[in-house]
Amino acid sequence: MGDTQHLTIGSKKPIYPDDGILKLYSMRFCPFAHRVHLVLDAKKIPYHAIYINLDKKPKWFSLVSSSTEVPALELVKEPGNPVLIESLIICDYLDEKYPEVPLYPTDLLKKTQEKILIERFGEFISDFFYLVQHEDSEQLVDTDLYAGLVAYEEELKKRGTKFFGGASPGMLDYMMWPWCERFASLKFTFDEKYVLSPERFPTLIKWRDLMLQDHAVKRFYLDGQAHAKYVDSRRSGNADYNMLYNEAKRVKLG
Amino acid sequence: MGDTQHLTIGSKKPIYPDDGILKLYSMRFCPFAHRVHLVLDAKKIPYHAIYINLDKKPKWFSLVSSSTEVPALELVKEPGNPVLIESLIICDYLDEKYPEVPLYPTDLLKKTQEKILIERFGEFISDFFYLVQHEDSEQLVDTDLYAGLVAYEEELKKRGTKFFGGASPGMLDYMMWPWCERFASLKFTFDEKYVLSPERFPTLIKWRDLMLQDHAVKRFYLDGQAHAKYVDSRRSGNADYNMLYNEAKRVKLG
Repeated sequence: MGDTQHLTIGSKKPIYPDDGILKLYSMRFCPFAHRVHLVLDAKKIPYHAIYINLDKKPKWFSLVSSSTEVPALELVKEPGNPVLIESLIICDYLDEKYPEVPLYPTDLLKKTQEKILIERFGEFISDFFYLVQHEDSEQLVDTDLYAGLVAYEEELKKRGTKFFGGASPGMLDYMMWPWCERFASLKFTFDEKYVLSPERFPTLIKWRDLMLQDHAVKRFYLDGQAHAKYVDSRRSGNADYNMLYNEAKRVKLG
Repeated sequence: MGDTQHLTIGSKKPIYPDDGILKLYSMRFCPFAHRVHLVLDAKKIPYHAIYINLDKKPKWFSLVSSSTEVPALELVKEPGNPVLIESLIICDYLDEKYPEVPLYPTDLLKKTQEKILIERFGEFISDFFYLVQHEDSEQLVDTDLYAGLVAYEEELKKRGTKFFGGASPGMLDYMMWPWCERFASLKFTFDEKYVLSPERFPTLIKWRDLMLQDHAVKRFYLDGQAHAKYVDSRRSGNADYNMLYNEAKRVKLG
């Protein structure tokens, strides 16, 4: 995964050789950017990851991508070096551009149904994290936070496959994963009650354990405690973007 | 456009001949449903429009589509009559399934860039209508409501074509249109200041006038006053879904 130092105001734009390799502007703890890392890694597409401090963005980044958002994918081989934004749109582009490891069903209707499930998962998850972060705990006691996840439990059970994508993870698996990985952090940041119930989600728990063995998932994986540590730093008003970088440096210096 | 009566609690599910024709569940004043009407009409795909009273949905609708949202497109020729939801996903499906009048560029990168502009327009428009409907007018005086539209003015000017899609409207044109049609209602519901400025948006105003001549736009068009009348009814707490139906009936009874 290389250097995860996040570039900040005053930093110089990193220079890369003219190697035609995609550049992904990312933030190490952003679940939307995580989606793009997963698709690139699943398809074994080489890329340079450039991490951005989102609170103090370097000036040159607005010249690369006017929206200054991550994820942003710079297509260095295309004329004018166009930059794509929006995680789902980037991932769909990659799937069509690099068809060797297809992540969608080939049938148009099945592909469309998969997109609907991806879109719906996004809505569940934004409600979920909004509630977790904004409601006070007393109000939360009566809220069925994981209600929106039941449809996915049932869907995977109905499919009877290891992954939503079949024998290997597909687009829906990867688009859900960044948040599913982060569910494990909620007991550290908030409360034990956010642990997925094995009675309610037996199929998704089996799925999670299988996903953890996938090479793309492994490549960008962080455990619940690491995610919680970052979230805690963000909640305290001082997001520790370079948490992993500094830890690695400390280990090196030993 | 046929019968625009909105079906409500207690209504029977309409019965259609086994004609293989798509069924679109819609609401006459919903801009998201409007998108699907435009794409179907642009491609001259026949369909049965079934209008739903969203405040008092008929029970049978939840058996057709568990989400009970509009737009919903029932694919009556596919096994199990699957139903698609989410306006952009439905429109993308239609474009691929019925390629005779293609609405996207064939080039993957250009198509992807069009999707980014569609996504961004959706974000601008949801902010726009949120502000218009929730902020009090004094706060609004200092807000540049149309700031997000400037990028589209510049984009179309740069392209130098009649439409974003070139010589005829493409997906971006149609996905933007429902809200652009509704801009003309804001001076009735709110204030004259919501009229698009010809100094600021000369290209988009020319575009709007050309769009108004498009056959798909004409087929589902309502003027600013009609949109305002519906919005006023909704704001008063009693959305007049059957406004057009009742007006047509009155005209008939003369």
